[in-house]
Amino acid sequence: MKSNKIIVAVFLSISFSIQGQAQSMVGATHSGQSTGQTPFPVDTYAELPNPATTDPGLWKNVKGTSVSWGSTDIRYKKEEPAPVGRISKEIELTAWKGERVATQWVVWSDQPLHSLSFSVTELVHKNKKSKIGQDRLLSGFVRYVMTDELNKDGMGGCGSRPDAAAFDSSLVADPIDHLTKVLSLPERTTQGGWVRVWVPQDSPAGIYEGKVVLKDGDKTLGELILKINVKDRILPMPSEWTYHLDLWQNPFAIARYHQVEPWSKAHFDCMRPYMEMYRQAGGKVITASIMHKPWNGQTYDYFETMITWMKKADGSWSFDYTVFDRWIEFMMSVGVTQEINCYSMVPWRLSFQYFDQATNSLKFIEMKPGDLEYEDIWGTMLRSFAAHLKEKGWFDITHISMDERPMAVMQETLKVIHKADPGFKVSLAGALHEELSDELDDYCVALRMKYSEEMKAKRRAEGKVTTFYTSCEEPRPNTFTFNPPAECEWFSWYAAKENLDGYSRWALNSWVIEPLLDSRFYTWPGGDTYFIYPGARTSMRFERLIAGIQAFEKIRILREEFNLSGNQQAKAKIDKALSLFDENTLETVPASVVISKANKIINSY
Amino acid sequence: MKSNKIIVAVFLSISFSIQGQAQSMVGATHSGQSTGQTPFPVDTYAELPNPATTDPGLWKNVKGTSVSWGSTDIRYKKEEPAPVGRISKEIELTAWKGERVATQWVVWSDQPLHSLSFSVTELVHKNKKSKIGQDRLLSGFVRYVMTDELNKDGMGGCGSRPDAAAFDSSLVADPIDHLTKVLSLPERTTQGGWVRVWVPQDSPAGIYEGKVVLKDGDKTLGELILKINVKDRILPMPSEWTYHLDLWQNPFAIARYHQVEPWSKAHFDCMRPYMEMYRQAGGKVITASIMHKPWNGQTYDYFETMITWMKKADGSWSFDYTVFDRWIEFMMSVGVTQEINCYSMVPWRLSFQYFDQATNSLKFIEMKPGDLEYEDIWGTMLRSFAAHLKEKGWFDITHISMDERPMAVMQETLKVIHKADPGFKVSLAGALHEELSDELDDYCVALRMKYSEEMKAKRRAEGKVTTFYTSCEEPRPNTFTFNPPAECEWFSWYAAKENLDGYSRWALNSWVIEPLLDSRFYTWPGGDTYFIYPGARTSMRFERLIAGIQAFEKIRILREEFNLSGNQQAKAKIDKALSLFDENTLETVPASVVISKANKIINSY
Repeated sequence: MKSNKIIVAVFLSISFSIQGQAQSMVGATHSGQSTGQTPFPVDTYAELPNPATTDPGLWKNVKGTSVSWGSTDIRYKKEEPAPVGRISKEIELTAWKGERVATQWVVWSDQPLHSLSFSVTELVHKNKKSKIGQDRLLSGFVRYVMTDELNKDGMGGCGSRPDAAAFDSSLVADPIDHLTKVLSLPERTTQGGWVRVWVPQDSPAGIYEGKVVLKDGDKTLGELILKINVKDRILPMPSEWTYHLDLWQNPFAIARYHQVEPWSKAHFDCMRPYMEMYRQAGGKVITASIMHKPWNGQTYDYFETMITWMKKADGSWSFDYTVFDRWIEFMMSVGVTQEINCYSMVPWRLSFQYFDQATNSLKFIEMKPGDLEYEDIWGTMLRSFAAHLKEKGWFDITHISMDERPMAVMQETLKVIHKADPGFKVSLAGALHEELSDELDDYCVALRMKYSEEMKAKRRAEGKVTTFYTSCEEPRPNTFTFNPPAECEWFSWYAAKENLDGYSRWALNSWVIEPLLDSRFYTWPGGDTYFIYPGARTSMRFERLIAGIQAFEKIRILREEFNLSGNQQAKAKIDKALSLFDENTLETVPASVVISKANKIINSY
Repeated sequence: MKSNKIIVAVFLSISFSIQGQAQSMVGATHSGQSTGQTPFPVDTYAELPNPATTDPGLWKNVKGTSVSWGSTDIRYKKEEPAPVGRISKEIELTAWKGERVATQWVVWSDQPLHSLSFSVTELVHKNKKSKIGQDRLLSGFVRYVMTDELNKDGMGGCGSRPDAAAFDSSLVADPIDHLTKVLSLPERTTQGGWVRVWVPQDSPAGIYEGKVVLKDGDKTLGELILKINVKDRILPMPSEWTYHLDLWQNPFAIARYHQVEPWSKAHFDCMRPYMEMYRQAGGKVITASIMHKPWNGQTYDYFETMITWMKKADGSWSFDYTVFDRWIEFMMSVGVTQEINCYSMVPWRLSFQYFDQATNSLKFIEMKPGDLEYEDIWGTMLRSFAAHLKEKGWFDITHISMDERPMAVMQETLKVIHKADPGFKVSLAGALHEELSDELDDYCVALRMKYSEEMKAKRRAEGKVTTFYTSCEEPRPNTFTFNPPAECEWFSWYAAKENLDGYSRWALNSWVIEPLLDSRFYTWPGGDTYFIYPGARTSMRFERLIAGIQAFEKIRILREEFNLSGNQQAKAKIDKALSLFDENTLETVPASVVISKANKIINSY
């Protein structure tokens, strides 16, 4: 049966390559190839051909198949033997109760492995009574996806990339594919596998042990011992985390990829596993588009309005919240309940679409903050919106959200918001403007922009949220598929150091056409637009992001404890560990190194 | 001042010719040229060049300028001397009180008339006390518009005409231009002028006299005496007429031509004079489009839906009647109050457009009578519509209107209508189906299809409306711009003969791109799509249509009187006059001849 599946997968791969050529000619995306995963469910797929050629010299000392524990810091190269130093058959991870910890195994061989599979046993406490069961494990092959690189100057990744050939392309390990159970590898191939253990909060402390068994067909390739040292400390559930994680969700990409009607039951059913991933990462904010194309359709799947704007034939405006309500209620049912951010009164193109009843057509109106018409129409909309939000009980968590705009524009916009309802909360993801701080209930600036300590303290005292973001501008740390995965963890250690409330990134899942195959897009570096993959597959990046947030929460708990107990020495030790998190040293001292050092200190308590 | 105006008009004409060439290249319409009348107001325009060449031989006996009374039956040719026989300087028309009567003068000259104008005096009773004032007169030049001809087989005019050159084109006299006050005519040109007198209902009987004075600049060309013999009989006001006139109104053409926002105050202001013309002709029916493109966009300005169809994101349907209500209320304010006909549950293409909230876009659904989905969606719509109509008090005058469809389709449609509300009235314009008659409150069949006497009697007894129509199918009588204008009058004489309630035509004002210049369209013969012209200009056709309806009403009154008085001889005389109205003899005995004979009889009472 298993080998049959592989044959099917390979067959599909060929036929999709042919389709792909046609697609790539129309230039819709860089790869053009299809996984054949739509419509779901299809449980596996073939990766794109590796643009890197295999160097036989690197393989000349490899005899047979090697299996070893590796590192979650490393994106193992498909075409090279894994650089593990010496083979490691046993690993011990340290975890708090309630924490997720992960490891990566790696296999490489000079022989083809036609039916590579692996299994993970449950983890048994030394007392033999307690177990961490299969339901707490997440494991999958670490698959290879196409990526590109920073701009040629190495200074960032912004700008359009219509010609993929203008950038070096490579396959990188990133998607964690828990759906594919068997892989067929040609000779001289390296393959990693991820094992994540989510320790139950009620697990007794102590050492738990299990093993990973790798097979090629019926033949066992090796066994790896996995130990978890569970400490007698409890990490709260994600819903209790204070970390303010805001990854913008794109429901439209899911509807397109899964070929379901937007906002239908099928759509919500498809979305639930993805949004569950966001919730389990501690996602706090619901992304809502309150007008057509708030970002001028910059993503492969543009954001459609969740509020129906209708200009009636009698000249009055009518707003319908059916979609908005369904989306918010759905996200709340998932467990994302803290904040609703609404984009945008100041979209990237100041062109506002509405349904014009008189002509039974969609029309655009060009207007800008400061215009009487803008004030009039948005004033009408916001008054209607405020009334609706109050009726739903959501007014106090809803923010009118802006991206960076010229100061005069933002000030005119704030005037309109306050005139419509002085109680409206406002958020901004943009540059640091000290003069706007008082008006912004949720403020997010780029990593390189540093809030003053006074500003942070004042905002915290007033219950305001203060976070940072990275975008295409930062070469590192960042979340591109070619960045070291540890950089995604680095963010939250940095937030702990800087006393920030959290991190924001503009794209949880603004997928490209085939996100599992090719993370490149016609703007920005590969992977910029999404963390998570179709099939609710997680990624090295997303897992490391969660690891960082866990570290943030652990540090918060330890600091509170040391504050109460007056343990100045421990506090200083943590501060010293956090002082390592300086983005300016990342080019020479990788994130994995400083995280490893800091983790040792945190896990010593 | 007057000559200045002409210079402006000529200048405009040149510049629009240049624009026109560009337009004709895109093939939007046959002439491509613009009158330059949009946006309004512009009070004159230049006609298209005459495709007919002037034959000098026809003009060789013409010396100087001739002025004479002519005939309302004749479309005088621009390039030929008027065939008036002997010059007539005096005319006497017979009218009932409340009747509109008309005459045409004609001028022709071998000299250019640079500033042709004319004036009509008020009409004074022989008693010198009573007058018919200027406010009761309508006068204007009879302008020339481009037309084509029947299909080459002479059997009708249906079918598309993408290539204007495939048909003979000519300028014909039709629009009555009350706005243009001065015309500049080259040598060897004939020009007609229309004078209509609407006798007040309270005018004393007797002879009224006035005159028409024609001038070229300050020079008087001639004077014509106009006498009206007002009889001691009263024609009721159009609102009291029983004749069921149904000319489908196209508000979308007016919005486009006048460049106004549909359903705005400006649009209604523009529409009022046109719809007033319809009311004054005795128009009884309001045309309402209840879905997008009921006739699949066959007119230059397609019918947009007056009801907003929205499929909400929760799967429910929502219908908004703002446009529909504004239109119906407007038409009622004009005075058209008797019937509302709603098109169409069975449009010419069974494709139904709606606004899809989930995707914020307009979508189409293909469904047909008999489909469960059709029954479900139309059932929902009709129940909502019925409730709305009842709330507005319009339910009893509203008809769900069908054009001819296959019998099975109509029967399935009737089922859905009756299931939604058994009280819904239904109308059909189509073929004669005896088995459907009981279900059709308003039934209109083609002229050539003859209801049985029993069917007509039964329908009348049940208060049902029974009428006929002409379309592109009939070569004659018909309303094309090349048909003799008397054929438009012929209809209602025929209705009186056949004991029908009235006449229907599918287009009051479905204008082509420049209806004043070129009545040709890319389907059907010229003029098929409209009776009335921009600027609320009437036409020879429309005036003769009204004359026929007046004759119908006069016959009705006389018949009632003779019935009461038992004047069998008079009744027989009328019946004999009406027996002349046989469409099969029209090719050899023109409508004008039979009308003239019949009129003499009617006016003898």
